[in-house]
Amino acid sequence: PVKPIEEELVYLRDEFAATKEVREEHAKMSQLYHQLQSKCKAEMTRHKRKFRGLKKDIQNIPKSQHDDQIRGLDREIKDYLSRIHDVESRLPGNNGLYLRLIVGDLNVTLPTSELKRKYKESYEEWKLGISIAIAIFSVFNLIFSHRLTDALHYFLILWFYCTLTIRESILVANGSRIRGWWVSHHYISAFLTGIHILWPADAHEYMRFRTKFVVLSLMISIVQIIQFTYQSGLLYRLRSLRKVDFLHITVDGIPSWAVSSKDALALYVVTPFLMIIYAYQFYPLHRSSHALDVNRAY
Amino acid sequence: PVKPIEEELVYLRDEFAATKEVREEHAKMSQLYHQLQSKCKAEMTRHKRKFRGLKKDIQNIPKSQHDDQIRGLDREIKDYLSRIHDVESRLPGNNGLYLRLIVGDLNVTLPTSELKRKYKESYEEWKLGISIAIAIFSVFNLIFSHRLTDALHYFLILWFYCTLTIRESILVANGSRIRGWWVSHHYISAFLTGIHILWPADAHEYMRFRTKFVVLSLMISIVQIIQFTYQSGLLYRLRSLRKVDFLHITVDGIPSWAVSSKDALALYVVTPFLMIIYAYQFYPLHRSSHALDVNRAY
Ligand SMILES: CC(C)(COP(=O)(O)OP(=O)(O)OC[C@H]1O[C@@H](n2cnc3c(N)ncnc32)[C@H](O)[C@@H]1OP(=O)(O)O)[C@@H](O)C(=O)NCCC(=O)NCCS
Ligand SMILES: CC(C)(COP(=O)(O)OP(=O)(O)OC[C@H]1O[C@@H](n2cnc3c(N)ncnc32)[C@H](O)[C@@H]1OP(=O)(O)O)[C@@H](O)C(=O)NCCC(=O)NCCS
Repeated sequence: PVKPIEEELVYLRDEFAATKEVREEHAKMSQLYHQLQSKCKAEMTRHKRKFRGLKKDIQNIPKSQHDDQIRGLDREIKDYLSRIHDVESRLPGNNGLYLRLIVGDLNVTLPTSELKRKYKESYEEWKLGISIAIAIFSVFNLIFSHRLTDALHYFLILWFYCTLTIRESILVANGSRIRGWWVSHHYISAFLTGIHILWPADAHEYMRFRTKFVVLSLMISIVQIIQFTYQSGLLYRLRSLRKVDFLHITVDGIPSWAVSSKDALALYVVTPFLMIIYAYQFYPLHRSSHALDVNRAY
Repeated sequence: PVKPIEEELVYLRDEFAATKEVREEHAKMSQLYHQLQSKCKAEMTRHKRKFRGLKKDIQNIPKSQHDDQIRGLDREIKDYLSRIHDVESRLPGNNGLYLRLIVGDLNVTLPTSELKRKYKESYEEWKLGISIAIAIFSVFNLIFSHRLTDALHYFLILWFYCTLTIRESILVANGSRIRGWWVSHHYISAFLTGIHILWPADAHEYMRFRTKFVVLSLMISIVQIIQFTYQSGLLYRLRSLRKVDFLHITVDGIPSWAVSSKDALALYVVTPFLMIIYAYQFYPLHRSSHALDVNRAY
């Protein structure tokens, strides 16, 4: 029975030897590519420093003199800075402090815009998946009330917000124009969930607050699910139109002309839901400040 | 005052134009490199599947027949598999389920062994930093007892273990031979810290257990700090000897011959501490099982 195996091994040995070239080319190109990246990065850093310095010089010029001329220069400098930002979004080393604390000096930039788009899509899908899971937990906890599922629910939310901040930092490092307040409100959400977890589960006020929290969590996940249809619609258009290519300045943003009237419609659908949830968020806020007063007394 | 700025801008414009070549070369090479990676990855996956199939065929051969011959074939196949693993550790797509859940389909592999070593070093330094922070919190909480610092302490530990699992998954994706039980005991630690956080802080048993937990946390961080000197010693030797290069099979592991008698000595120093902490860990385990009984009654 050893004979056929030996024959097969001879064959595999040859096959492996045949890919020697690819393997060696890859090893060599890794080194070269890494060198080129460092070089390009250094150049962009240099450009950026100089253009920024010039921008500051312009701001120091007293107003009302040569106004038009200055505005023209300013616009040109901004244009250069955005081109530099665009090149940098394909280079490593854009990790902010938060990302450096968690994954360290890893290169999180995706090299092509195609990969960036795919990453954004998988981020939306991941958000959808976890939102559905949280919605299920919420419904379950509305009907039943058990310490264990409560805890699982809270930790899932905590994990969700923490991971959300990681993924969004990665998107930002890849040049996404995702809003600052959007990212920072997830840090705050994670923090508040942490406080909620610490709340002793046998306190009287806790039980009164619990239902409100679960309803809030359910509503947020439903809004997230609705938002997904809006966001994925935009991403789908982006892909089908193939309007974002390598030379395009906003590498994987959604330029305003790509937003058709259909999106505007979708936005009109999303907005009322957001309004409702904002209004609802103030109610437990009021309740909880009351509860905190009680707690402080205790 | 506009004149010198205009002159400077003309100069910067030329400078920027001068790096056009580097920028374009980088954009082109990104594409090429990515294609080569995909190709190489596909080849390695194919090789791996075939060699693994052959390995299974060998295992199916009844023993005591051609024993020596089979052992020889087996060894050769294992050698090929380890060479394939080595190439794969420089290619993207080694993310396990955990890493895919958190950062998604990001390429976390570092392209050169130099970068891998640096990443390992920064991981050790990061562990050291957080361990020192945890030790400080522990000492503080041993002396004082406040709800807020308690909570910060627990969440820091929770965050530490969660991030540890992320970083270790990245190391594993980079071909580190870090032990499975070592990684998994951090998942368990994170889970247990979560349970500890849920523990109502006003329960009577909690206060009795609290001091033990803080002492344990202090001891673990001290052991971590001691371990750091051992690990960083190994990494330092690795770097100074420059014995690990691109062609070396265990890309960034520490081969046994690199471990000198001085390390063995360090290991002798580390081991007693580990023993003490293992012994100590059983004590609160016993206590907490008692506490759980009390809790269940309640
Ligand atoms: C109004 C809204 C739904 C859509 O805004 P929009 O007009 O699509 O925003 P833009 O297209 O200018 O987005 C700018 C960037 O942010 C991203 N972005 C916007 N909303 C986002 C969201 N909800 N999740 C993730 N990314 C988002 C866009 O994709 C884009 O990133 P890109 O540069 O990588 O393409 C959204 O921005 C918003 O306001 N969300 C807040 C929802 C909220 O308050 N929820 C509360 C309950 S948790
Ligand atoms: C004994 C010990 C200190 C050293 O072991 P060692 O002989 O250096 O292990 P090896 O060199 O074979 O290590 C294999 C891999 O695991 C890594 N590794 C070993 N111990 C590690 C640790 N404590 N932290 C991180 N990585 C570790 C090594 O760096 C190596 O990775 P590489 O392939 O990327 O180079 C360590 O392995 C150990 O047992 N740690 C457990 C400590 C413990 O029980 N702590 C309890 C308190 S939390």
